[in-house]
Amino acid sequence: MCGIVGFTGAGSATDILIRGLKKLEYRGYDSAGIAVFHDGDIRIVKAKGRLANLEEKIKGDSTLTSTCGIGHTRWATHGEPSDVNSHPHDSHRITVVHNGIIENYMRLKEFLTGKGYEFKSETDTEVVAHLIDYYYKGDLLDAVITAAGKLRGSYALGILCRDDPTRIVALRKDSPLIVGLGKDGNFIASDIPAILEHTKDYYLLDEGDIAVLEPGGVTVYNMEREIVQKEKLTATWDVAAAEKGGYAHFMLKEIMETPKVLADTINPRVENGEIHLEHEAELDELFRSVKKVMIVACGSASHVGYAAKYVIERLARVPTEVDIASEYRYRDPIVEPGDLVLVISQSGETADTLAALRLAKSRGAKVACIVNVVGSSIARESDYVLYTWAGPEIAVATTKAFSAQLAVIDLFAVRLALVRGAIDEAHARELTAAIAALPEQAKALLAREEECKRLAARYQNAKDLFFIGRGLDYAIAMEGSLKLKEISYIHSEVYAAGELKHGTISLVVDDTPVIAIATQSHLIEKTVSNIKEVKARHAKVLAVCREGALDGDVADDIFTIPDGEDLFVPSLDVIPLQLLSYYIAVLRGCDVDKPRNLAKSVTVE
Amino acid sequence: MCGIVGFTGAGSATDILIRGLKKLEYRGYDSAGIAVFHDGDIRIVKAKGRLANLEEKIKGDSTLTSTCGIGHTRWATHGEPSDVNSHPHDSHRITVVHNGIIENYMRLKEFLTGKGYEFKSETDTEVVAHLIDYYYKGDLLDAVITAAGKLRGSYALGILCRDDPTRIVALRKDSPLIVGLGKDGNFIASDIPAILEHTKDYYLLDEGDIAVLEPGGVTVYNMEREIVQKEKLTATWDVAAAEKGGYAHFMLKEIMETPKVLADTINPRVENGEIHLEHEAELDELFRSVKKVMIVACGSASHVGYAAKYVIERLARVPTEVDIASEYRYRDPIVEPGDLVLVISQSGETADTLAALRLAKSRGAKVACIVNVVGSSIARESDYVLYTWAGPEIAVATTKAFSAQLAVIDLFAVRLALVRGAIDEAHARELTAAIAALPEQAKALLAREEECKRLAARYQNAKDLFFIGRGLDYAIAMEGSLKLKEISYIHSEVYAAGELKHGTISLVVDDTPVIAIATQSHLIEKTVSNIKEVKARHAKVLAVCREGALDGDVADDIFTIPDGEDLFVPSLDVIPLQLLSYYIAVLRGCDVDKPRNLAKSVTVE
Repeated sequence: MCGIVGFTGAGSATDILIRGLKKLEYRGYDSAGIAVFHDGDIRIVKAKGRLANLEEKIKGDSTLTSTCGIGHTRWATHGEPSDVNSHPHDSHRITVVHNGIIENYMRLKEFLTGKGYEFKSETDTEVVAHLIDYYYKGDLLDAVITAAGKLRGSYALGILCRDDPTRIVALRKDSPLIVGLGKDGNFIASDIPAILEHTKDYYLLDEGDIAVLEPGGVTVYNMEREIVQKEKLTATWDVAAAEKGGYAHFMLKEIMETPKVLADTINPRVENGEIHLEHEAELDELFRSVKKVMIVACGSASHVGYAAKYVIERLARVPTEVDIASEYRYRDPIVEPGDLVLVISQSGETADTLAALRLAKSRGAKVACIVNVVGSSIARESDYVLYTWAGPEIAVATTKAFSAQLAVIDLFAVRLALVRGAIDEAHARELTAAIAALPEQAKALLAREEECKRLAARYQNAKDLFFIGRGLDYAIAMEGSLKLKEISYIHSEVYAAGELKHGTISLVVDDTPVIAIATQSHLIEKTVSNIKEVKARHAKVLAVCREGALDGDVADDIFTIPDGEDLFVPSLDVIPLQLLSYYIAVLRGCDVDKPRNLAKSVTVE
Repeated sequence: MCGIVGFTGAGSATDILIRGLKKLEYRGYDSAGIAVFHDGDIRIVKAKGRLANLEEKIKGDSTLTSTCGIGHTRWATHGEPSDVNSHPHDSHRITVVHNGIIENYMRLKEFLTGKGYEFKSETDTEVVAHLIDYYYKGDLLDAVITAAGKLRGSYALGILCRDDPTRIVALRKDSPLIVGLGKDGNFIASDIPAILEHTKDYYLLDEGDIAVLEPGGVTVYNMEREIVQKEKLTATWDVAAAEKGGYAHFMLKEIMETPKVLADTINPRVENGEIHLEHEAELDELFRSVKKVMIVACGSASHVGYAAKYVIERLARVPTEVDIASEYRYRDPIVEPGDLVLVISQSGETADTLAALRLAKSRGAKVACIVNVVGSSIARESDYVLYTWAGPEIAVATTKAFSAQLAVIDLFAVRLALVRGAIDEAHARELTAAIAALPEQAKALLAREEECKRLAARYQNAKDLFFIGRGLDYAIAMEGSLKLKEISYIHSEVYAAGELKHGTISLVVDDTPVIAIATQSHLIEKTVSNIKEVKARHAKVLAVCREGALDGDVADDIFTIPDGEDLFVPSLDVIPLQLLSYYIAVLRGCDVDKPRNLAKSVTVE
């Protein structure tokens, strides 16, 4: 999940690369580097840490005036963050930037060492540079094609050759890469924001495509060196949309966008109180015959899955299973006729989720996806796409996209239930109205930001913290816990409330903070019993519950959620949990938008 | 999960109660108390903390010479551990001990307060005493029957009335209770060990049974006050089997029993290289038609379930789902024709698991169980029982019973696969031989106790620790993490190795300990990638893997597991993990056998 950018054309490549890398820094940021042509050779500058360190290093360097170069921000996989492990990596004539993992790098390294190549870094990427150099006989494209045939794993690559001082060669496998088409030059980038200030026109590279960029044009070849005709796409996202809009952090801005995102995701699908999904005729037919829904996702998207299992089974009575993508794909999963596999991913590029999708398809499953990025790999490879219209999400910790995914699940479940006759039309209308009310309810909750801020101050010094809940409350507790943990570095852990006493309660002592989600009416008594268990061990309890549901002395702090349908309340619960995490992280001085060790869009396994 | 004992007969009730409570202390031990008759009244003595505190309090007390009384060790649910919240609780003429939770105690409390009753404690139990007193019109049995009709929740109750100084009335609902039949008197107890030194003969009380104990005999009534004929059972467990046998703790003794337990569980089911399960004809028929296996369990038993999903799907290709019992039972679960529900519980009394079993049965599922306690509620209510022959397990943290459960799963999966034709006979024999080899392999691992001790010394000071693994390695990592956490109070958390990078890796910094389980050959490359991710953040890694599977520099420490079938290796992996947890807890000075806040046999929800 590194970020790649490249430019050849008229203008300072260094400037363009640095500006592009800034837009990509959310993809990983433990080091960065650039390579540009200079004086018959390639000049590489790289630096550990934030991009600012690299900028410092290149300031006033008169050797960096080339009009062609490549750049990279890194998220370490092989080899710790350091100057030497930063990209670009080079070998004699060849310089590369790489996103992904080369799985067979150990064997290639042995082979190349045998041929006399010396390795400077611990990275898997360096073998790519040496390998291309090894095959280079004067034609870069030939060398790249031959080398690509030897590589196992996932990669997006940008490549320079000392002998071609205005040319970039680029290709991808299982990692995203686009080619930007400008008036004064051409670009490569991991993602659209990196080039948006220069051009909105781009090609999506498919697997097996090799792009050759020159200042005056781009030619795309296949692995047989035949020219491929690419469709020119146009980005509809606005640069301004990816800015912070006055908030201190992208995360807060994105939380505040929740009502709009919910409305954007829900409203176009509700007409006269009825739900209409994309691919309506086909999906309805599928809905009538589906025997099982298998949800596969990673991270926060998998928490949406756990909520979805509950909502879908409850409403539509279709057995629903949830699996983590990195587990599902290596499980030799059983796919039976009538199985619908539903994958969920914000970026649409999550490597494990994409691989799970491909596996499920190869075993005969129909695949639907819920993704946020139009034209992403997962969107392109699914049979049915249900987009979350959440716009670009820049903060590493997902917030608005999570809420949008939940909303799509709610719409999906109600439609599924109606089509199957599990609920009648009147009930469906009632549920649809409850979904349609979510944006306004979310707005009312966001207006209580100050309340969350005060609670944050009370819990900011926690070392170990537990989230508990039952049923849908458990699913949302998973997300609350992950959110807090990933940005505040508090060791938060989530537990099904009924499971605490099977071990974890031994960690609950005086003032251990426990955040209990208790919004589900039929579970409230049971959850209260569990709250009492931890209170009896002097835990400090924050309860998220409906108005009047708890006696004042059951919990130390209470945050109330407005009344409404139990099944859809997770979309509301999550808002105070996101705000709480955000303010705790801010109070602890954490870098909220770019938490330690993490990256957006996890395109490695 | 409190412990109850009672006696009426010839001899000092106080002595018998204290000795009995000692045997039950593993069920919960935050406070204890006794009630005996004295001088026309009932004398109650209770004390917070260990039983020793109570003994101290009663030493030399000449008023405690009665021949009839009841006693209790408590594990707090309502109201923190304190003298006043300890049992017994009394109301004028009535004194009770209680195990379980009265769900409607708030409403009953209001009602009784309205009638002029004053409450001394925060417990739910006190309402029972007042309620019986309220209905008491001179006949205790009548009053108990009327009161029982008003109680919601789970309970085992022992009751004394001031007016009947040699009589105990006892009843149960969803909590275990037995009646011991001695030569010189009669007993009530939560479990057999409490009375074993006095008698081996007992009645199992069924729900709706009310036992009236006198020194000369026991009469059991139903709720209509008709006499019920009970079958006299005889305990086969030996008192000595429940002793520590020279080890410092029950836990270590029980880990060391693993080879014997595996042999006891496996050998009787393997004949001429073939597996034969109990109920063979019926189970084989069921196996041929089963469409889904739904595993429901709590705590460690649920980790056996996650391993089972993997083994069953891999070998028998039957879709298998796992759910936590406290979640399953409130999920309004979908049960379809052809579903086999498999519940797993050491004690056979786990309240949530029992409730899940009942729910599944009521929806038409066939239920098989894997339990350790013969005649336990779960065993009695299941259609098919597969016992783990692990003997009594006293340490709160399960070890040998867990290994025995895994062994039953392995046998179950191979038989299921063979009967369905998913594997052929030759393959079944090969797998059966691999299972039969487990006891000897376990013995070889236990001989490496010193190695685990040395590793424990290296990891004993951890504050936050992560376990990672994929597939079966993930399932066993769950158990390793829970074991460490529950007895050492280190905040250990388990993660699917591929999920770390979706958030939790932000907690990995210099020297964060990570224990990686990497025994599955087809996953080793992927897990190594994840180990490298955490090593790149300077984590301190202990890897559990096969001999020669990892380069020496991949992890800081390596514990190797003998070669053998990947599918059955969890039974081996778990041994070093148990020993590591044990020695870390000992080094940290923790009370290994009786961890803080925990109890064996979780008979509350």
